[in-house]
Amino acid sequence: MSKVRADITMSLDGYSAGPDPDLEDPLGKGGERMHEWALGAQSWRESHGLEGGERNADSDIIAEGVSATGAVVMGRKMFSGVSGAWEQDPRSRGWWGDDPPFHAPVFVLTHHERDPLPMEGGTTFNFVTDGIESAIEQARAAAGDKDVLVAGGATAVQQAIAAGLLDELQVHVAPVFLGGGTRLFDGIAADVGLELTRVVDSPTVTHLRYRVIRS
Amino acid sequence: MSKVRADITMSLDGYSAGPDPDLEDPLGKGGERMHEWALGAQSWRESHGLEGGERNADSDIIAEGVSATGAVVMGRKMFSGVSGAWEQDPRSRGWWGDDPPFHAPVFVLTHHERDPLPMEGGTTFNFVTDGIESAIEQARAAAGDKDVLVAGGATAVQQAIAAGLLDELQVHVAPVFLGGGTRLFDGIAADVGLELTRVVDSPTVTHLRYRVIRS
Repeated sequence: MSKVRADITMSLDGYSAGPDPDLEDPLGKGGERMHEWALGAQSWRESHGLEGGERNADSDIIAEGVSATGAVVMGRKMFSGVSGAWEQDPRSRGWWGDDPPFHAPVFVLTHHERDPLPMEGGTTFNFVTDGIESAIEQARAAAGDKDVLVAGGATAVQQAIAAGLLDELQVHVAPVFLGGGTRLFDGIAADVGLELTRVVDSPTVTHLRYRVIRS
Repeated sequence: MSKVRADITMSLDGYSAGPDPDLEDPLGKGGERMHEWALGAQSWRESHGLEGGERNADSDIIAEGVSATGAVVMGRKMFSGVSGAWEQDPRSRGWWGDDPPFHAPVFVLTHHERDPLPMEGGTTFNFVTDGIESAIEQARAAAGDKDVLVAGGATAVQQAIAAGLLDELQVHVAPVFLGGGTRLFDGIAADVGLELTRVVDSPTVTHLRYRVIRS
């Protein structure tokens, strides 16, 4: 059955992005180091139009997520790569290049109305101004039998949990301290339940998967 | 070789204790729920003078830690069970009952000098007023060939990392959101390195072990 999933890398100290993100370094200081586990994986490289990479447990996890995903929800900073409102600029094509790695309809949470922005490779950015519930509903309709991926950032994941709409949460715990930045889980209600459903151990990251139990 | 270890349970949202700790609930709201994985384990029960419990991977992990530990370092709140300065009260015997589960010399970080407090079962509380380095040095001398366990709370673990004195860190990630409380890792320097050395997957908790690489 179609699920709403989040799938996000977290440092051991709980950050999904390091301090001081900018266009050069949208994941903040140290953020790229946290994602090294993915950057070398064959399936990550393939989804980004790159050759090579390792075929390993990490690559399998990414491939599994890619093939299950029919539509994506993301926050505006994840679209534009930086804080600010330039997602409203009709010339902006986002941070992800001409052929973004999503290859599916993407629903961007924003306060600024804008026409859909079709990209190469099957990605279309749609701009949703009426909140997370609406974005997930539209993504569900677009995903068909496949899953909706809440790709990030932290605020979008927190909003999906708070709305009771997240079915599954996969956290890739990287053996890294960022020392500051954006906490992945801030202000989650203590009555949101979790059931551990899978652990995949790999040399440089631990993939923890949970079912989210709605309160 | 003798190591300095920390071994501590953390919620998925990064807390080692929930909000509003008091003498009834020294781990804060939800803190006990986070430790359920340990409370049912045979080895945890044995170290607390209780019979029964399950013999499983969790119990083995606890037993491994108990047998490796020669001395313990802890913060004053962990000794007294509550915020405040009643560790200085010579009548106080701490929060742990007459036969504390440590069965080894314990070095309590405090601002108040006090004579050592011998308890039943091999635990002696020693009070250290000159900081984490001194506490770990005294614990090392007492531990002989065995390890020094920095048992908590969060501040003691953070101080040991900041002092460059922690060799190994084991985090028991509980499938729980606490939504508030004490962050286990706050203000850790981003140049403190981690190497993932072991993952033990169990139904209700994930045991992640890291070597701490001093910067």
